[in-house]
Amino acid sequence: MSEARARVVTLLTDFGEGTYVPSVKGVLLRLAPDAVLVDITHSVPPGAIGSAAHLLKHTAPCFPPGTIHLAVVDPSVGTGRLALIAEAGGFFFVGPDNGIFGEVLRGGSPRAWRIEQGEWLPPRICPTFHGRDLFAPAAAGLARGENPERFGVPTGVETLVPSPIRPPAKTADRLMGEVVWVDRFGNLLTNLDRSLIEDWAGGAPYRARVGATSIDARVHTFLDAGAGCLVLLFGSWETLEIAVPMGNASRRLGVAAGEPVIVERIHGA
Amino acid sequence: MSEARARVVTLLTDFGEGTYVPSVKGVLLRLAPDAVLVDITHSVPPGAIGSAAHLLKHTAPCFPPGTIHLAVVDPSVGTGRLALIAEAGGFFFVGPDNGIFGEVLRGGSPRAWRIEQGEWLPPRICPTFHGRDLFAPAAAGLARGENPERFGVPTGVETLVPSPIRPPAKTADRLMGEVVWVDRFGNLLTNLDRSLIEDWAGGAPYRARVGATSIDARVHTFLDAGAGCLVLLFGSWETLEIAVPMGNASRRLGVAAGEPVIVERIHGA
Amino acid sequence: MSEARARVVTLLTDFGEGTYVPSVKGVLLRLAPDAVLVDITHSVPPGAIGSAAHLLKHTAPCFPPGTIHLAVVDPSVGTGRLALIAEAGGFFFVGPDNGIFGEVLRGGSPRAWRIEQGEWLPPRICPTFHGRDLFAPAAAGLARGENPERFGVPTGVETLVPSPIRPPAKTADRLMGEVVWVDRFGNLLTNLDRSLIEDWAGGAPYRARVGATSIDARVHTFLDAGAGCLVLLFGSWETLEIAVPMGNASRRLGVAAGEPVIVERIHGA
Repeated sequence: MSEARARVVTLLTDFGEGTYVPSVKGVLLRLAPDAVLVDITHSVPPGAIGSAAHLLKHTAPCFPPGTIHLAVVDPSVGTGRLALIAEAGGFFFVGPDNGIFGEVLRGGSPRAWRIEQGEWLPPRICPTFHGRDLFAPAAAGLARGENPERFGVPTGVETLVPSPIRPPAKTADRLMGEVVWVDRFGNLLTNLDRSLIEDWAGGAPYRARVGATSIDARVHTFLDAGAGCLVLLFGSWETLEIAVPMGNASRRLGVAAGEPVIVERIHGA
Repeated sequence: MSEARARVVTLLTDFGEGTYVPSVKGVLLRLAPDAVLVDITHSVPPGAIGSAAHLLKHTAPCFPPGTIHLAVVDPSVGTGRLALIAEAGGFFFVGPDNGIFGEVLRGGSPRAWRIEQGEWLPPRICPTFHGRDLFAPAAAGLARGENPERFGVPTGVETLVPSPIRPPAKTADRLMGEVVWVDRFGNLLTNLDRSLIEDWAGGAPYRARVGATSIDARVHTFLDAGAGCLVLLFGSWETLEIAVPMGNASRRLGVAAGEPVIVERIHGA
Repeated sequence: MSEARARVVTLLTDFGEGTYVPSVKGVLLRLAPDAVLVDITHSVPPGAIGSAAHLLKHTAPCFPPGTIHLAVVDPSVGTGRLALIAEAGGFFFVGPDNGIFGEVLRGGSPRAWRIEQGEWLPPRICPTFHGRDLFAPAAAGLARGENPERFGVPTGVETLVPSPIRPPAKTADRLMGEVVWVDRFGNLLTNLDRSLIEDWAGGAPYRARVGATSIDARVHTFLDAGAGCLVLLFGSWETLEIAVPMGNASRRLGVAAGEPVIVERIHGA
């Protein structure tokens, strides 16, 4: 029966190893015994809301409709910042109102609720651990199929803290983006979408520049150009990547997340 | 039907990455297909029974009643040390008798069974891997709802190896505890409970001393005193923490787990 | 009802932290909502097919019959290398045809299917992420109980890329193997099976040599010889291990995976 189907709850935090993550999971399973828990990651750099927003943007849509994404990178825990439930694209999101959901709430007719305390909460809420005492109980309620109205009051999406990720800038001559993630293979993932680049280029040749290095070799998949070459490709999320197949572009170029990436036309070829 | 509800089995080890943890999980799922497995952590420092006891104390109670906590930090595996099942506060615990359960068995009318070999065990028990061959089958049996008597014989809790964690010491002038965990944000978590400190202080002002540094700024949550300040607060388990919000107290002070922490009165203020 | 029993899907990759692993999990749960997902590890060194083959050999057999092992260490993703489903010993295996399944397909009457594109696939397959777009949908289909024929065509097991792990060599005087894994405790796990060594030794004394060091102290479990001693034992998979109980053999000897290990007779004792 489909109504007996377990609801997926994902967890994305900067908590690392220790007591924090299993405490949140214990509360979720106590309040929603049929929830299926899936880790996105707990290795977001401490307080890095932009990294979390980026990871969530790319992974959240892979999950089953109705999945509840619990995301807690929350350096301002216990202060006046709002606590949120949001819904967009068939998914729920639960966490602090600090921009962490700024990317996933861009499309899909988003709705939002400001979490308010009520009888559904534990008797004592620790001001340093809303993940366990506030967000986990709200996420568990959604996993049980309860209505967001039970946990909060509707609030306008336009009043929420926006994503901290700067969108790429565009001129006639260049696109200016940045490295948003370095994966385990040293590939540099950028915030420059294939559609943005192709619309801008209009079929003309282009290259990418990061630091002092220009790259114009474009490939379809990693080994098309042979091991050890510095190449451009559109990767797993249709965004521009800079890679060294069987090598490590991040180490080769000395580049980390945050580094500017310029795409520019190749003139007089 | 509630009797069909899956039983949660948590795993806490010092096994790290590799074949050990998935082997234990494979055995658990083969013998108890409906068990829900949750990692506490597998990054306990090798052989650090005290760290494991501390982590278990704070996370075990968050889980649903009936949860089976499988904890294997077991440097003496295969020697004469006993193998245990214990029950306290509505939870089961399975692992070596080496003090790892010394904290969680302090309250809640604990009971214990010494695991004995029987027909429920695999035909060959590897002397270096009781986690897979002895503890996992016992935990799986409990997850299927079987009685601890099937796997062992009752033993007095008072005969078990005690917790290796020293309790704090108290004089009229000072409380002496220690840093028991450094979290990912560099916060120093101590073994000094709020109730212990407040009973001792009786409302008078106090400060904490760690190494050569005294801290007397007390806050409710991290950002109350502003980013970069060294502060005291009662954290997620109502124990004293030393923190640098948006910074890292462990790095600032050069302090790791095991460092003594002294709480003393502020005289002549 | 046994037919409603959830099917286990394990995941073994070199993806590390980030978006890749949770994306694969999201797809699996979307297409097979009752699958039970278990991580083997995602910390295989990038591109290390031999390490993955070794880990899979030791952990796969612990899982319930019918488990689907999804293993993606795939430096040639998107090129001409084949994509596989295989079956051996009651388990399914899904991943690239690059030797990663070379060890697990040695016994148990293996069968194999070459994955071919069909209507079961997503509309767009990213050439850099077959884990998400090709292997996860095939594994999800198997987890739903579908037949491998739905996803591919039978292919001869003898045509598959063999395991990259060299088998040990044997002369009258010595056995020559290697360190295949260093565990978290610094124990050196070799590819020398107890049965191979005992058949060769025929009851006569032997020692192991790694680098410039000879070891002849043989123990049953770690602490039999006391903390800090360099010892030989047959470990959790009945293979020769070199260990320093309460110490770290890898650091003591300066030895990593890949180092040759020689077993030789002790003459004139």
